[in-house]
Amino acid sequence: MFSGLSAFPLTPLTDEMLDEASYSALVASLASAGVDSIGALGSTGSYAYLSRPERARIAELAVDSAQAVPVIIGVGALRTRDVLANVEDAQNAGASGVLLAPLAYQPLSDDEVYRLYAEVAASLSVPLVVYDNPVTTHFAFSDELHGRIAQLPAVASIKIPGVSADLATATARVDRLRALIPERVTIGISGDGSGVTGMLAGCDAWYSVLAGVFPHEFVEIAHAAHRGDAELARARADRFAPLWALFASHGSYRVTAAVAEDLGIVGPGILPRPVRGLDPDGRAAVAAALDAAGLRR
Amino acid sequence: MFSGLSAFPLTPLTDEMLDEASYSALVASLASAGVDSIGALGSTGSYAYLSRPERARIAELAVDSAQAVPVIIGVGALRTRDVLANVEDAQNAGASGVLLAPLAYQPLSDDEVYRLYAEVAASLSVPLVVYDNPVTTHFAFSDELHGRIAQLPAVASIKIPGVSADLATATARVDRLRALIPERVTIGISGDGSGVTGMLAGCDAWYSVLAGVFPHEFVEIAHAAHRGDAELARARADRFAPLWALFASHGSYRVTAAVAEDLGIVGPGILPRPVRGLDPDGRAAVAAALDAAGLRR
Repeated sequence: MFSGLSAFPLTPLTDEMLDEASYSALVASLASAGVDSIGALGSTGSYAYLSRPERARIAELAVDSAQAVPVIIGVGALRTRDVLANVEDAQNAGASGVLLAPLAYQPLSDDEVYRLYAEVAASLSVPLVVYDNPVTTHFAFSDELHGRIAQLPAVASIKIPGVSADLATATARVDRLRALIPERVTIGISGDGSGVTGMLAGCDAWYSVLAGVFPHEFVEIAHAAHRGDAELARARADRFAPLWALFASHGSYRVTAAVAEDLGIVGPGILPRPVRGLDPDGRAAVAAALDAAGLRR
Repeated sequence: MFSGLSAFPLTPLTDEMLDEASYSALVASLASAGVDSIGALGSTGSYAYLSRPERARIAELAVDSAQAVPVIIGVGALRTRDVLANVEDAQNAGASGVLLAPLAYQPLSDDEVYRLYAEVAASLSVPLVVYDNPVTTHFAFSDELHGRIAQLPAVASIKIPGVSADLATATARVDRLRALIPERVTIGISGDGSGVTGMLAGCDAWYSVLAGVFPHEFVEIAHAAHRGDAELARARADRFAPLWALFASHGSYRVTAAVAEDLGIVGPGILPRPVRGLDPDGRAAVAAALDAAGLRR
């Protein structure tokens, strides 16, 4: 479950309310495409903005629509009490795993983050993915801290941020982390532009945002990269380069939402305020990137 | 209301639940000491960690315990929908103003932050304080954005982070902002170590965390600084320098909590997990600083 391609769907809103039909259809399309797991309520799934009841409902819909594909549910919150409540809801919904980032308002120390994971791990009956996302949490994991947390028996995987485009540098980075964690713990790459390099560098999994919109294409790319077929993986991934360039300038969250809106997979205006979708210039750039790649259906 | 000394009380928890009696006594002690306003549910008041019902209850307790002193309530949340709900609760409780920081999970653009303030301002029947706290929000206000937001009629004050210890530099910083905002909008300094310099540099208000524990002492310091009596203000502020040094190394939130716990103003363990109080070494340093200053009662 914590290797291969994990697709992270958007959570579409309509007038700030969950669009249940679009969400269920989106999750079902990922399952049908043969992804190895589904990451519901990741960052691109807007988890940080949603209430406990909204998140519990989304967990149910994801598990119900995923057919037999394992679902990993994001459970992060600013307060440990709320993380534990989300864990309970995710497990009740039938989650196969949970994903936890160290959200912070007051900057957290390494010891506070370790104790957060230890407390959550002690309450879990499913495996945990450690979610390292410094852009949103502003928490910088050291490899030493990753190693310490990975000793907790509940930890099954670490979702790391993007790696260098240079394969030797990326491989050294993955090897350095690998040396500090138990063999049972997998390493998954995120930052879609780094995905192929990350897999070729030895990551076990690709936690992918664009796979939540283009699951067929990313199953092919990720599986080619996983078996070491660099040529095929890179050739197939190249068409997405213009979108990844837009990720860098506009953020993956807003760009992925604009892609899904452009393609009609979701309705317009799916993000929660204060976040706003791309402006008309940004949307035109997204449309041009999709056209150039032959991705507009 | 948005000038002079505004004291920001802690929100004491006991086993993760609000300690109502301690909180009401704390707020009442600030009012009795003659502070000009009370800032309930600021960062030191743990607002970011509390649920809507908890925050509504705290707003009620604060207004009820503040006698005739105006209460400003923190209403920030990651999602605009939740900010608006907190505004409604604060107004129903009898708040005299609200305080809003641009909390973010996905980094926000200037335009998104402007539109957040515009939307909230349009719903308000009390004045708004713009809360600029880059350490917790990771959002960097430009002075130009402050100027644009300050044009919204609901905006009454801007709470700025600490300024340079050099008075000329601090004065230039305050003057630069002042030139961009309407005359009705006050500027308030935070970062307690900068408070005296900020007031001498022309700030109208001091939004103070230690005033939430030592209100008598800070009323004297702030009022001296406000009328330009630099000598008295600096002489009286000097004794707090060891505490401000600890703010720099351990964070004002944890240190202020440890001070209040040491003095018995609140019970032990008042912070919400994953945040932990200071370790024994940190607490010993706090006790030593209080002893040296003759502040241990």
